[in-house]
Amino acid sequence: MVVVLESGATPGQVDHIIRVLHDYGFDVHQSTGVQHTVLGAIGVHPEFDHRQIELLPGVSEVVRITEPFKLASRAFKREGSVVDVGGVPIGGEAVVIMAGPCSVESEEQIDTIAARVAASGARILRGGAFKPRTSPYAFQGLGEDGLRMLRTAADAHGLKVITEVMDKSQIDLVERYADVLQVGARNMQNYTFLKDLGRISKPVMLKRGLAATIEEWLMASEYILAGGNQHVILCERGIRTFETATRNTMDIGAIPVVKKKSHLPVVADPSHGIGIRDKVIPMARAAVAAGADGLMVEVHHDPDHAKSDGAQSIYPDQFDQMMQEVRLIAQAIGRRLA
Amino acid sequence: MVVVLESGATPGQVDHIIRVLHDYGFDVHQSTGVQHTVLGAIGVHPEFDHRQIELLPGVSEVVRITEPFKLASRAFKREGSVVDVGGVPIGGEAVVIMAGPCSVESEEQIDTIAARVAASGARILRGGAFKPRTSPYAFQGLGEDGLRMLRTAADAHGLKVITEVMDKSQIDLVERYADVLQVGARNMQNYTFLKDLGRISKPVMLKRGLAATIEEWLMASEYILAGGNQHVILCERGIRTFETATRNTMDIGAIPVVKKKSHLPVVADPSHGIGIRDKVIPMARAAVAAGADGLMVEVHHDPDHAKSDGAQSIYPDQFDQMMQEVRLIAQAIGRRLA
Amino acid sequence: MVVVLESGATPGQVDHIIRVLHDYGFDVHQSTGVQHTVLGAIGVHPEFDHRQIELLPGVSEVVRITEPFKLASRAFKREGSVVDVGGVPIGGEAVVIMAGPCSVESEEQIDTIAARVAASGARILRGGAFKPRTSPYAFQGLGEDGLRMLRTAADAHGLKVITEVMDKSQIDLVERYADVLQVGARNMQNYTFLKDLGRISKPVMLKRGLAATIEEWLMASEYILAGGNQHVILCERGIRTFETATRNTMDIGAIPVVKKKSHLPVVADPSHGIGIRDKVIPMARAAVAAGADGLMVEVHHDPDHAKSDGAQSIYPDQFDQMMQEVRLIAQAIGRRLA
Amino acid sequence: MVVVLESGATPGQVDHIIRVLHDYGFDVHQSTGVQHTVLGAIGVHPEFDHRQIELLPGVSEVVRITEPFKLASRAFKREGSVVDVGGVPIGGEAVVIMAGPCSVESEEQIDTIAARVAASGARILRGGAFKPRTSPYAFQGLGEDGLRMLRTAADAHGLKVITEVMDKSQIDLVERYADVLQVGARNMQNYTFLKDLGRISKPVMLKRGLAATIEEWLMASEYILAGGNQHVILCERGIRTFETATRNTMDIGAIPVVKKKSHLPVVADPSHGIGIRDKVIPMARAAVAAGADGLMVEVHHDPDHAKSDGAQSIYPDQFDQMMQEVRLIAQAIGRRLA
Repeated sequence: MVVVLESGATPGQVDHIIRVLHDYGFDVHQSTGVQHTVLGAIGVHPEFDHRQIELLPGVSEVVRITEPFKLASRAFKREGSVVDVGGVPIGGEAVVIMAGPCSVESEEQIDTIAARVAASGARILRGGAFKPRTSPYAFQGLGEDGLRMLRTAADAHGLKVITEVMDKSQIDLVERYADVLQVGARNMQNYTFLKDLGRISKPVMLKRGLAATIEEWLMASEYILAGGNQHVILCERGIRTFETATRNTMDIGAIPVVKKKSHLPVVADPSHGIGIRDKVIPMARAAVAAGADGLMVEVHHDPDHAKSDGAQSIYPDQFDQMMQEVRLIAQAIGRRLA
Repeated sequence: MVVVLESGATPGQVDHIIRVLHDYGFDVHQSTGVQHTVLGAIGVHPEFDHRQIELLPGVSEVVRITEPFKLASRAFKREGSVVDVGGVPIGGEAVVIMAGPCSVESEEQIDTIAARVAASGARILRGGAFKPRTSPYAFQGLGEDGLRMLRTAADAHGLKVITEVMDKSQIDLVERYADVLQVGARNMQNYTFLKDLGRISKPVMLKRGLAATIEEWLMASEYILAGGNQHVILCERGIRTFETATRNTMDIGAIPVVKKKSHLPVVADPSHGIGIRDKVIPMARAAVAAGADGLMVEVHHDPDHAKSDGAQSIYPDQFDQMMQEVRLIAQAIGRRLA
Repeated sequence: MVVVLESGATPGQVDHIIRVLHDYGFDVHQSTGVQHTVLGAIGVHPEFDHRQIELLPGVSEVVRITEPFKLASRAFKREGSVVDVGGVPIGGEAVVIMAGPCSVESEEQIDTIAARVAASGARILRGGAFKPRTSPYAFQGLGEDGLRMLRTAADAHGLKVITEVMDKSQIDLVERYADVLQVGARNMQNYTFLKDLGRISKPVMLKRGLAATIEEWLMASEYILAGGNQHVILCERGIRTFETATRNTMDIGAIPVVKKKSHLPVVADPSHGIGIRDKVIPMARAAVAAGADGLMVEVHHDPDHAKSDGAQSIYPDQFDQMMQEVRLIAQAIGRRLA
Repeated sequence: MVVVLESGATPGQVDHIIRVLHDYGFDVHQSTGVQHTVLGAIGVHPEFDHRQIELLPGVSEVVRITEPFKLASRAFKREGSVVDVGGVPIGGEAVVIMAGPCSVESEEQIDTIAARVAASGARILRGGAFKPRTSPYAFQGLGEDGLRMLRTAADAHGLKVITEVMDKSQIDLVERYADVLQVGARNMQNYTFLKDLGRISKPVMLKRGLAATIEEWLMASEYILAGGNQHVILCERGIRTFETATRNTMDIGAIPVVKKKSHLPVVADPSHGIGIRDKVIPMARAAVAAGADGLMVEVHHDPDHAKSDGAQSIYPDQFDQMMQEVRLIAQAIGRRLA
C-alpha cells in the first residue's frame, strides 16, 4: 500500500499516520520529494480496507499495490493452466468448442442436437437442466431427468458434458452427470457456494458476472482455488453497459487482459454475449481471433419452439459454417481446433 | 406485445407473422398506416421471449407492452403497502431509521452502538452476523453468536432487528433472531433463494443488485411476493457506473421512480451507496428529500478498529447530527421521523 | 508517480526502469520491502503518460499520485469560490435558483414565465436561443431574437440571465445579452472552445458531460481557469448508466464529492438529470439536501405546446411548491435561498 | 408511435388522449384487447417528443416505432455504401488498413513510419496535426506544418491521408491536405460542426462518442448526410463502462449491429479501443473477424519518445505481424486486404 500525503501535511499528522500504519502491522518506508511525501506500507494484509487510511488527516490518496488475488495470478503461476475435461484439455494450443441447446427439453431434442454438433467438430455438449429465469412464471428446467438425457446424448456421440449448477443442494447430483460444472453469471459472487465448489474434484467453469470487473472475477475464482480445486475455467459472457441495441456488451478485450493477468483458461460465450442469433457468429469469430481458449455456443435444430433462449440459438447448419470459419481463424493465429 | 412491420414487408410475410403469433396463442389486431403496419398481439404470456418474433422476416421491431411484474406493480395495488416490522410500520407517513455497525463484533460493541443510535431516534438495529466478502481471506462474521448479541442489544434498547441472510441454510436461524431479513445486493437474482423467502412470514428487505435495472429489481421482488410473502421492502444501495470517485453511484432517482411503479416501501442505504464516511450524511439527507420511506446507516463508535466497512461508518455524534437534519427535511415534505 | 515493481524483477530491469525515469526528468526514491520494491518518481510532469512506464519489463503497476487539475482544486485554494452573477453571488451561504423554459419561443412566452418564476423567488432566468438537438429535423432555436427577448423579460422582472453558447462564433453575441454563459454537456470536452471561454470576463457555467468522470469535469474547468477566467460554476445534470427507466442517472453523490475536491460552486439541473416532469421536484429537493449551491429548473406555463423538452418542464404552480419545500430544506442544513 | 393505455383508463381519458394525438397531427388507430387498449398513432413527426404523451392521464407506456435516422438506415438504402478515399474504396469486399502515429512530430518521424506501414500493406496514413488533449498543459500538435509533413510522407509512399479536424475554422485547411477528414469521439454530438461537414465534398470518418449509443451515432451521421455529403465512414473506438482494467471497452458487437442497421462502412480503431500496446493486435484481429471494413492502428517506430499515446502505439514489426494475421482472418471470412 502506498500512502500519498497532502502537500500541507504537518509533521504531527505524518507521525500519526505512521503510528496508525504500525498499529495495523505494516512496515513503513518514507520518501520525501519536493512536492509530495509518499509512505510505502509493506505487509501481508490482503483483506485490509485501505479506506481506513484514506480518512486520516493529512492523507491525500491511498493506493493498493498488491492485486488482491494470488492463486489465480500469473505472478503466482507463470505457465498457463490446462484444465482436463474428461480427457479434453482446455487452455492448451487447441481451441475447444462446446455447443448445445439452452435447456434440455426431451431425449429426442438433445440427441438430435448432440449428433449435429458432434459432426461439426464440437467436443463438449452443453444443456441446462436447472434454469435461473428472470421471471418466476417461466420454464425452470427438467431437473435430474434433464441431466440423464444430457449424459446419454453426449455419450452416444463421443462428447463431454457441461451444465449449470445453481446451488449447494444440486452439487452432488450435477457432479454425477457432468464433466464440468458451470457457475452462472448471477452466482459469480455467491461466495458460500464458491467455497462449496472449492471442495469438489471436477472442473468448474465460472462465468463473469454482468457487472463484475475483471479483478472481481479473478477474486471469485480465488474462492474456488483457495478451497483446493485447481480446475477452474473462466467464461466471458457479456457485461452490462449503457448500450441497449444488444442484450449485453461482449467484452472481447477481457480475453487478452485475463490471459495476461491470470494463468487460467478463458472461454467465450457469444450467444449470451450478444443475445441475438444473427450476430452470434461474428462474435464467435472475434473471440477466437482475440485468443479465447474455447467457445460455448447455443445451438438448436428448432429454435422457434425452444423452451428458452431460442432467439439466440443458431441452427446446426449455421454452427457448421461457424466451425469452418473459426478453424481458419485459429490457424491464422497459430492455434487449431481441438 | 406490439409488432411493427418493415415498410416493405410482403403480404406473404405478414400472413406468416400473424400465423406464428396465433400458434403462440396470441389474439392479433392489425392496424395499417401510410408508412407502417402495426400488429397488436394480445394474450397472457408473461414469460414470452419477444426476440422470437423479432427474427421473423418482415418484422422491424417488437415492443413488449406489459411490464413483466404484476404483484409488485401499482397497477395491481394502487395504495402504498405498509410493512409491519415488529410493530414499526414502514411505508406510511413516518420515515424509519435503521442504524448499527456493519458487523456484530462483540457484546460490548453492539450494546454500545445500540444505546447510542436508540438515543438519537433510530427504531431498528442493523448488524451483520454472516458477511459476504469479496476476498476469501477477510473476516466472515460471528454466525449465530452474532445474532444472539444483536437481539440482546436491540431488546435492551427498545429496537427491532434487521440482519442479512445469505442462503437457504441460514433462513430458519435468522428468522429466530431478526424482525426483518435482509437480502444482499449479490443475491438479488438468486431465484431459488428468493422462492424460499417467499414461504416465510417475516418481512424481507431486498437490496437492489449492483447492475440491476429497476425493472429487474421489481421482478426479483415478484419471486418473493408470488411465493405468498407480501412483506417486502426494497432498498436502494448504489449501482455500478463508470464513475470511480465514489465506490458506487447512488441512484437517488430510483426512489421516486419505484414509488410510482410499485406499491412497495423503499428504503435507502447511503453508507453503501456512497462508500465513504464524510459523504454519508449528505446522501442520507438527499434520500429522505427524494421520498425514501426509511434509511439504513452504518454507525460505529470506533470505526478505526471495525472489522469491516469502518471507513463508511459514521460516528454516533455524526449520526445524531444527521437525525436532526433528516427530521427537518422529513417535515419540509410533509412527513415525520418514526 | 509511484512505480510498483514485480516481485521477480531483476536488478537489471530495476536499473533500466530507474534510468528511463531519470531520462524523463524524474527524481527517483527507491523503497524495498519484503515482497515489493516501490519507486517514487517525483517531478513536475502534469501531462506525462504513465502508460509509458507501465509497459517496461519488471513493472507491475504505475500509480499517478498528483491529481491532474490544479487551479480547480481545493489544495490550490482552500476557501470556496463565490462567483458573482450580475450581483447575485453563487457559492456562498445562499442557494440560488435559476428557472425558465428550455427554449425561448416568443416575447409573450418568456415574459409570462419570467413573471411567474420571479414571483416564486427565482433569481436567474434561463432560456435557450441556440439549441443543440439530437435530430437535424428538430427546432433549433430563435437565435439573436431569442436572446433579446430573454434579456428584456429578465430585466422586466429583476432577474439575471443564463443561456447556452454553442461555439466560438456565438460568444460575442451571447456575452452581450447574458450574465452567465452556459456550456452544454456535449461541449464539455471541446477544448478549443473552452480556451476561448477562458479569455472572456463573464462567468461560465460548465455542465458535466454525459460520460465524464468528476476528474475529467474538473480538468475541463481547468481549461477555462488556465485561460484567466476564474468565474466558473459547475453543473451536475445526470450521467449515462445502464438504467433506462430514467433518461439519465442524476449523480447526486457528485455534489459532495466536488465540494470536497474543488473550490468551485456546484449547481444541479434536475430537469435534465431525471428527464420527466413528475420526478423533477424530488430530485431538486435531493440536490439541495446534498449541498448544491443552486438549482437550474425548466419551467413552462404551457408545456404541452413547448417547442422542446416540454415533458421535463414543470408548471409554474409546481415550481412555487418546489420553492417552498426547497427553502425549508436549505434551512434544515443551515443555509437559505438567495 | 404506439400508445399503450392503462388497464383502468376511463372512456373520458381515452377520448382526451385521442384528441391530443389528433391535435399533434397524428392519425389514430385503436385496438382493444382483453387486458389492454393500444393506440397506433401514425404520422410524420421525426422530432416529436413522445414524453408529451407519456404524461397524459390513462397512458401506461409510449413506444416510438420509427427509428429516428433515415438516410443512414438500411431501410433507406439496401446495398452497402462504398466510400471512395482518393481511389481506395472502403466498404467493399476488401478490408482497408490505416496506420501511422498518433501525432505528426517531425518530417523524419512521419516519413520513417509511412515507409514502414506502406511496406506492410497499409493503404492510408494517419497522423494528428491538431490534438484534443484532456489536459491544457499537454502537447497540442504541429498545426499546418504537421499537415504538410503528413501529405508529403503519404505521397512519397503511395498512401492516402486521414487526419482529425477539430472545428469549423480548420475545415478548409484540413481539406486541402487530407483525403478523409476524421471527426473525433468528443465532437460526435457537436451538431453545428457536423452540419458544416455536410457541406464539403471529401469523405468524413465519424468516430463513435465515448458514451454514444449506436442509435445516437447513426443520428450524428445523419447530420452530415442530410447536408449533402454522402461519403461517411463510421469508426468504433471503444465506449466507457464500469471496467477500468482497460482504458475503454471496445464494443466489437457494434460492428455487426451497425452493418445490419445501416449501409455505411464501419472501421475499427483498436488502439483507442483497448488503449495499451500489448493488447492492440488481438483486438485488431477480433474487429476484422467480426466484419469491420477497415482498421485504424497507431504505429510508432520509437513509441517511448512519442509526444502522445506512445503507450498504445505498436512497433512497425508488430504491425507487420498483425498484417499477416489479419490477412488470413479476412480470407477466413471470404474477404481480403485492400
